[in-house]
Amino acid sequence: MNKIICETYEEMSEMTASILLAEMTKDKRSNLSITAGASPEGVYKILSKWYAKYKDNFKDVYFYNFDEIEDGSGKPGVTISALNDQFYTVAGVPDKNIRKLTYANHASYDAMIKEDGGLDVMMLGLGADGHFCGNMPVSTNFSQETYKTYIKKEYPWYPLFESMFPDGNIPEYFVTMGLRSLMKVKHLVLIVNGKNKAEVVKKLFDLEMSEDFPATGLLQHPNLTIIMDKEAAQLI
Amino acid sequence: MNKIICETYEEMSEMTASILLAEMTKDKRSNLSITAGASPEGVYKILSKWYAKYKDNFKDVYFYNFDEIEDGSGKPGVTISALNDQFYTVAGVPDKNIRKLTYANHASYDAMIKEDGGLDVMMLGLGADGHFCGNMPVSTNFSQETYKTYIKKEYPWYPLFESMFPDGNIPEYFVTMGLRSLMKVKHLVLIVNGKNKAEVVKKLFDLEMSEDFPATGLLQHPNLTIIMDKEAAQLI
Amino acid sequence: MNKIICETYEEMSEMTASILLAEMTKDKRSNLSITAGASPEGVYKILSKWYAKYKDNFKDVYFYNFDEIEDGSGKPGVTISALNDQFYTVAGVPDKNIRKLTYANHASYDAMIKEDGGLDVMMLGLGADGHFCGNMPVSTNFSQETYKTYIKKEYPWYPLFESMFPDGNIPEYFVTMGLRSLMKVKHLVLIVNGKNKAEVVKKLFDLEMSEDFPATGLLQHPNLTIIMDKEAAQLI
Amino acid sequence: MNKIICETYEEMSEMTASILLAEMTKDKRSNLSITAGASPEGVYKILSKWYAKYKDNFKDVYFYNFDEIEDGSGKPGVTISALNDQFYTVAGVPDKNIRKLTYANHASYDAMIKEDGGLDVMMLGLGADGHFCGNMPVSTNFSQETYKTYIKKEYPWYPLFESMFPDGNIPEYFVTMGLRSLMKVKHLVLIVNGKNKAEVVKKLFDLEMSEDFPATGLLQHPNLTIIMDKEAAQLI
Repeated sequence: MNKIICETYEEMSEMTASILLAEMTKDKRSNLSITAGASPEGVYKILSKWYAKYKDNFKDVYFYNFDEIEDGSGKPGVTISALNDQFYTVAGVPDKNIRKLTYANHASYDAMIKEDGGLDVMMLGLGADGHFCGNMPVSTNFSQETYKTYIKKEYPWYPLFESMFPDGNIPEYFVTMGLRSLMKVKHLVLIVNGKNKAEVVKKLFDLEMSEDFPATGLLQHPNLTIIMDKEAAQLI
Repeated sequence: MNKIICETYEEMSEMTASILLAEMTKDKRSNLSITAGASPEGVYKILSKWYAKYKDNFKDVYFYNFDEIEDGSGKPGVTISALNDQFYTVAGVPDKNIRKLTYANHASYDAMIKEDGGLDVMMLGLGADGHFCGNMPVSTNFSQETYKTYIKKEYPWYPLFESMFPDGNIPEYFVTMGLRSLMKVKHLVLIVNGKNKAEVVKKLFDLEMSEDFPATGLLQHPNLTIIMDKEAAQLI
Repeated sequence: MNKIICETYEEMSEMTASILLAEMTKDKRSNLSITAGASPEGVYKILSKWYAKYKDNFKDVYFYNFDEIEDGSGKPGVTISALNDQFYTVAGVPDKNIRKLTYANHASYDAMIKEDGGLDVMMLGLGADGHFCGNMPVSTNFSQETYKTYIKKEYPWYPLFESMFPDGNIPEYFVTMGLRSLMKVKHLVLIVNGKNKAEVVKKLFDLEMSEDFPATGLLQHPNLTIIMDKEAAQLI
Repeated sequence: MNKIICETYEEMSEMTASILLAEMTKDKRSNLSITAGASPEGVYKILSKWYAKYKDNFKDVYFYNFDEIEDGSGKPGVTISALNDQFYTVAGVPDKNIRKLTYANHASYDAMIKEDGGLDVMMLGLGADGHFCGNMPVSTNFSQETYKTYIKKEYPWYPLFESMFPDGNIPEYFVTMGLRSLMKVKHLVLIVNGKNKAEVVKKLFDLEMSEDFPATGLLQHPNLTIIMDKEAAQLI
């Protein structure tokens, strides 16, 4: 693993955007998997500018989401909606370049990615409870490719879903790429920022590999770059 | 080939620096070949900042020059001196990470690169006369790996050497990686800027492949990204 | 280039079959391009046995032909028919794993291959006149990806088509992947056998790169393995 | 993972030898890691023949052992001695192409491999107790690259060392590449044969990932080919 501690959030974002942009400029199909959330906001600010301006050069760049939560109404899921808002719509990514993970296709998603030549780069964040993608503490199974996780009261992360669905219509399950799917990605880029992530970063490096703290599994990846800002790295 | 026309020299430099930086952040040895000259100044400004600040993360990054002119005095050659001035010294690249092509080692340089796992990225410029690296019009032989070129009065580029060595002590020959060496680089990045390159850019795309206009040979490369500014691209 | 001179045709075939088989056993999509003709008969004998027996392990292996001649009747072309006879039918390759180059799709064939993740290995032969795929002496253009070649009386290879179409209904043109398409293949394997190829092998290594002897262009490829039997190599 | 069940031990050996041979014929440096023991005997029979005959074509092929037991006398270790007997001496591999893992260099072995460009293929076997390389039940730590394992009475595999060193001079520890080292190998080939491996093969696919049955960790690898004979696969 290459562990990079940037001075600032802006530098973390610039370095990460560089990795994605570099992949996109190659003279071959590029398959990128990206995350929604607060951490990548700086990355998307940079990347949207490049994408919008040089879109014609990125016709062979495809984007894949790595988890999804649907409410059963037939509307786009939580992840794809967030990615639309944060990046796809702003940058003007054509629908044909967006590969969507959904409840309907999750069982064949890894096969589709294999057919598409595999993922080149995945940018992902680190949850304060040690989750990555939708691999949540306790419910995670490291031996899975893309899989369903049932949303049960007994899991420590159940309250998160209660707050996401205040009307009480909590979905039965969500879907996520699992550790085995991620091991096949050629380059994993984990971005972490802010002092409220300092504890979880410390745990990531201190704990033994365990499904109770799923991000520990990422450290097995053969080409993992962890880019943090100083605040997130302050306890290591 | 992926042909990218940037609005400005600054954007050309940022995009190119991104490609180099991305390679450098991978969790594996990276072998980069870079060019001296005016075009990459903007790239080195960005890259030196990153390198100097995050040097500890770049211990597995090695730099290789692709041509050299020595004056026989035993002093460092023209290319390595220019790279020192433009990048290595400014950025603080340790000597152990710099692989030097010299008159003494040129015959075994390709074998050394093969042993080192091959070059990952080469950034190069485009000469106004269509040369790349030290592959000059007329004297170029597309079937060569690293080779010697004798500096003869009959070549159209002889006056260049007259002006470089005003005391008349023109070296007998110089050395350069040839097209066959470059074909083995995983990603070639050709940068071109300024209106005085507009004619040569037009020729690059109009002419048939020929050793009289050596850069035409680059278009055979399987992963070539050409990054230009608007002025250089104004005739295509 | 790695130049291997085998004791016998059988060893040449075994070594070549190994390269193809190895690619097929990887846990990823494999895209192979293969040739019809006399030279690969030994390879297909070995490979058909493996394929037929272990077909379920090769679901992610795709085959691409690299040239085609159609007679306008709507029947399968000359190349695909020969590949069916020599390999696809014998081995039991399902139609869904065969990607066909045709007159109809030739203009988008390189784009399709790019979308499919690129070709991993191509096995090809060497024509007695120095041709490779359908890149024939004189008519070849090294700067092409897949392209049309018009069949004209002025070309030295016209008599070949006269003998292939004795009824005089010679097609107007044929299609072939060009040198630029081949440069993008990750591993090229050129097989040559028999004493009647000894002259052409000698020329391959003696001649300068030229469209008059198209195979000289192959020597630019960054990962080229030439496997010959002793008879073909007797003049080098 | 690609799971291939061969009819016979001979076919298992042929298929595995093909994968190694194919890597060796590429026009680039190849770094192979191979195992001693009974399972690869058939592979070495085939490979030694090729190597001895075509040695000049394999100058850029390097071999690395993945574990070692030394007795403190300064004599070559158990693994390197076995590899010498089974393959290196028979095939005539020059000493300069053999990279040895020893007690002295084990702490820098992964760094050396990184410098050398990484391992391309590793062929390994499956222990009847679920071990791989020197990753033994209970003592294994999945979070390690190359590491020391102390040989203690409390481990279930202690009797194995008692029988290996009947004079009672059991070494204090041995060294082995760990799961994190293996995850960086581009292609893992696990070979398993014989009915006495049928139980352990069944467990490999039935058990959860656990350091008590180390081979379960291998299933996380992004490019794993498991080649078995029918007898080893009879319970799955």
